[in-house]
Amino acid sequence: MSQTKILLDESEMPTHWYNVVADMPNKPYPPLGPDGKPLAPGRMEAIFPANILAQETATERWVPIPEPVREIYRLWRPSPLLRAHRLEALLGTPAKIYYKYEGVSPAGSHKPNSAVAQAYYNRVAGIKRLVTETGAGQWGSALALAGQMFGISVRIYMVKVSYGQKPFRRSLMQAWGAEVFASPSELTEAGRQVLARAPDNPGSLGIAISEAVEEAAARADTNYALGSVLNHVLLHQTVIGLEAKKQLEKAGDYPDMIFAPCGGGSNFAGIAFPFFADKAAGDKRAEKLRLVAVEPASCPTLTKGVYAYDFGDASGFTPLMKMYTLGHDFIPPGIHAGGLRYHGDSPLVSQLYHEGHLEAMAVPQLATFEAGVQFARAEGILPAPESCHAIRAALDEALRCKRTGEAKTLLINLSGHGHFDMAAYDKYFAGELSDYEYPAQEIQAALKRLPEVQA
Amino acid sequence: MSQTKILLDESEMPTHWYNVVADMPNKPYPPLGPDGKPLAPGRMEAIFPANILAQETATERWVPIPEPVREIYRLWRPSPLLRAHRLEALLGTPAKIYYKYEGVSPAGSHKPNSAVAQAYYNRVAGIKRLVTETGAGQWGSALALAGQMFGISVRIYMVKVSYGQKPFRRSLMQAWGAEVFASPSELTEAGRQVLARAPDNPGSLGIAISEAVEEAAARADTNYALGSVLNHVLLHQTVIGLEAKKQLEKAGDYPDMIFAPCGGGSNFAGIAFPFFADKAAGDKRAEKLRLVAVEPASCPTLTKGVYAYDFGDASGFTPLMKMYTLGHDFIPPGIHAGGLRYHGDSPLVSQLYHEGHLEAMAVPQLATFEAGVQFARAEGILPAPESCHAIRAALDEALRCKRTGEAKTLLINLSGHGHFDMAAYDKYFAGELSDYEYPAQEIQAALKRLPEVQA
Repeated sequence: MSQTKILLDESEMPTHWYNVVADMPNKPYPPLGPDGKPLAPGRMEAIFPANILAQETATERWVPIPEPVREIYRLWRPSPLLRAHRLEALLGTPAKIYYKYEGVSPAGSHKPNSAVAQAYYNRVAGIKRLVTETGAGQWGSALALAGQMFGISVRIYMVKVSYGQKPFRRSLMQAWGAEVFASPSELTEAGRQVLARAPDNPGSLGIAISEAVEEAAARADTNYALGSVLNHVLLHQTVIGLEAKKQLEKAGDYPDMIFAPCGGGSNFAGIAFPFFADKAAGDKRAEKLRLVAVEPASCPTLTKGVYAYDFGDASGFTPLMKMYTLGHDFIPPGIHAGGLRYHGDSPLVSQLYHEGHLEAMAVPQLATFEAGVQFARAEGILPAPESCHAIRAALDEALRCKRTGEAKTLLINLSGHGHFDMAAYDKYFAGELSDYEYPAQEIQAALKRLPEVQA
Repeated sequence: MSQTKILLDESEMPTHWYNVVADMPNKPYPPLGPDGKPLAPGRMEAIFPANILAQETATERWVPIPEPVREIYRLWRPSPLLRAHRLEALLGTPAKIYYKYEGVSPAGSHKPNSAVAQAYYNRVAGIKRLVTETGAGQWGSALALAGQMFGISVRIYMVKVSYGQKPFRRSLMQAWGAEVFASPSELTEAGRQVLARAPDNPGSLGIAISEAVEEAAARADTNYALGSVLNHVLLHQTVIGLEAKKQLEKAGDYPDMIFAPCGGGSNFAGIAFPFFADKAAGDKRAEKLRLVAVEPASCPTLTKGVYAYDFGDASGFTPLMKMYTLGHDFIPPGIHAGGLRYHGDSPLVSQLYHEGHLEAMAVPQLATFEAGVQFARAEGILPAPESCHAIRAALDEALRCKRTGEAKTLLINLSGHGHFDMAAYDKYFAGELSDYEYPAQEIQAALKRLPEVQA
C-alpha cells in the first residue's frame, strides 16, 4: 500500500501566501459606499488597521507571511494530507481520494490560519481589542486563540442558534479568554432592532456581523475581524492549498477535482486558489482541473443567488460588495453547518465563479451527515458538519467514477473535526434532523430588498 | 528559534512494541485466583483470545506490530513531539519543555494505540463482539473506533458520573457504531447488586469492569477488552515512548524528567518504559533520568496505597494482581479526570515503582485545571483533565528550575485534547470545582477489605 499520510517538515511550510488577484483575468470590482460611489476615506480605517487594508487591495502575487505568524502556525502546521485508502476500498471506487486535514489546529478547524494573521497585524498596529462574529463557533474560537497569542482581548457575537447548539465551542472561546454573547443581542442598536421585530430570531452571520461592526466602529480602541469573505482572509487561507500542492507533488499526484465546503468562501478559496494559479500559469496538469465549492441546499448562494452589489451584513453597515447573494437580510434555516449559514459569498470567489473558472453545487443536510458518518467509520476522523458537505460531493464523484471506471484523483478540504458538533450527530442518529424546504419565498423576498445601486 | 514540531515520517514509525518485562530486574508477580493459587486454566480464555494472553505473559524484549495495526496507526501516527517554546518563555524558565501530543488520534487521546491492537487480535481470533468499560470515555471511544475498523461490534459500560459529565464522548462512541450504557447498570448482576445497595452510586472504573467482565464471561461470542492496567495494554502504548525517543534524538536532546498522568498506568508506561529500557541497558544519558507518574490527590494509588494482591474490579471477578491499590471497592471522588479514577495501578508500573525505578506524585484537581488553562493560553492546545496532571507537575518542576537556574529537559505525555471536557472547564471558570477532601476514611475502610490471600 502506498503512503497514508503525507507530511511536510516545518522548513517546508510556505513562506508566502498566494494572492489570486494577481492572476484574475479581470480585476476585482471595488467595494462601494451605500450611494454607489467609491468608499469615503476613513470608513474602513475605523474598523481595520492599515496593514490589513493594504492586503485587502494588494495585487502582488506573493505576500510574505510574517515570522511571528509562522511561529504560531508551527504549533500545528504544516497540516497533514491523507490518502483515504480505507474509504476508497469501502466504496470500491477506482478514484483516489485525498483529504487535507485542518482539524489538527488547537481550535479544531482551518480558521486560525487567518485569525492568527489578523491578530498579529492588529497587534502591530497597536490595537488591543478585537470584536467579531461567529456562526458555529469555529471562527470565534480561532480568534480567541489568536488574540490570546498576541495579547489582544476579544469579544465575540455568536449566532444565537449555534450558541444554543454548540455550548462547548463557546466554552472553548472562554477558555482562551474571550467574551461571548448570543446574537442578536441587546448590546448593539443592530441587535436591539432585530429583537424588537422578532424576539425569537435565531440569528444569522449577517446580523452578528452588523453587531460586531457597529461596536468596532463606535469604539476607538477596538477593531473588527472577519472570518471569511474578504480578500485578506482568503489570502491567509491559501497556506492550505500551497501545502497541499507540495504534499501531492511528494505523492506524485495531481488532482482532477477539488471539493471544499463554501459559506463565506475562505475554506474553499484556501485550497482552490493555489491550484487556480496553475490554471492561470497554463500548467498542463491543471487544464482539466475542476474546483468545486459545495454549499448547503438550504443556503445556496452560488447556485441559486444573484450576482449583484449587496451588503455583507444584515443591517447594511458594511460597504457594498459585488458578490453572489441571497439578499443581505435573508435568514438561512438553522442547519447544523453554522459556518455555511451566510447570505453572500466572497467577492473573489463570486467573480471567478461568475466568469466560469470555478464550479458550485448544493447538497441537502441529511446527505451530508450520512457522508460524514461513512467517512468517520472508514477513516476515523469525525468531520465537522461543514466539512461533511465537501465529503458528500466527493463521495458522489467517487461513486460516479466507480460506474464509469475512471481513476480520478479527488482532493477534499477537511475543514475541521466534529468533536464540538456531537449534538448535531445525536440528532441525526435520532432521526430528528430534516433537510429543510428550499426557502424559495424568503430568498425571493430578500432579493427584492437588494440595494438599488448597482454598478 | 529552534524547531517547534518534531515529526517522524510513516517509514520511521516503530515496527515493534517494547516489552519492559525483558528488562525488569525481578520478574513480574503472577496473577492469582481468589484462593491464592495460580489461575485455573480457561479462566482468562473465556474473555481474552489466546494471542492476547500470549502477549500478557510474553518475555521477549520486542514484539512485532502487525501490519494491519500499523495501517490503522498511520491514520494519525507517528504523533508529533512539540517544544513548548511559548510556555517556557511565559514561565521564564531555563528548562526545556517538550510534549508528545496524542490528541491527534481520531478519538482525541492515546487510547486507540491499544484499542486498535486489541480489536485486531480479537478479529484474528474470530471474535465479532467486544465489551468493555470506560471512565471519561477515552477508552470507550477508542474501542468503538477500533471495533469499527475491524468489523467488531462493541458494547461499553461507561462510569455513570462521566456518562453525565461527558455526553458528547458518548455520542462519539455511538457515531462509531458502539452501544453505550451508564454503569452501574441493571444489565448485569454486578450492576444490580451495586444499585441495590446505593441507587445513586456514581460508578467507578472498578464497577464498570465488573459489569463488562461478567458479560464477556457469560457470552461465548463476546470477549472483553481492557483499556489499561494489563501487561499487553502497556505494551501497545510503548509506541508513544519509542517515537518520542526518536524525535528527541532528532532534536539532539534527552530528557532529565518525564511526566505522565497515571490512572491504570498505560499512558505513563507508554512513554516511560522505552526510556526505562535505556536505564536497564546502562545508557549513560539515562543514569539520572527520572520517570514521574502523576496521579490525582483524591485517588492517590501509588503515593498512598498499599502494595498487595487485590482485584482489578470492584466485585472481585478478576484475578488477583499484585499492585498498588486503595482497595478494590474504593469509589474515588467524582473528579473530572475520569480516566484517573481507578483504585489500582498496573502491576508492571506498581512493581517498578515499588522497586525504586519510578517516581510518583499526587496533585489536587484545581491546580491541574490552572495548569491546563496556562498551557492552553501559551501553546494553544486545550488539554484533557488527565493530561493536566502531568502538565501541573512539569510546570512546577520548570518553576523550580527557574529558581535554581537548572536547564533541565522535561518531557510531558499529553495524553489527549480537552474538547470533550468543556463542561469541566466551564465549572472550573465558574468556581464550582473543588479539590475534594483526601478520602482517608474511605480508603482505610476499603483497604480493610483487601483479599486475605497474599503471596
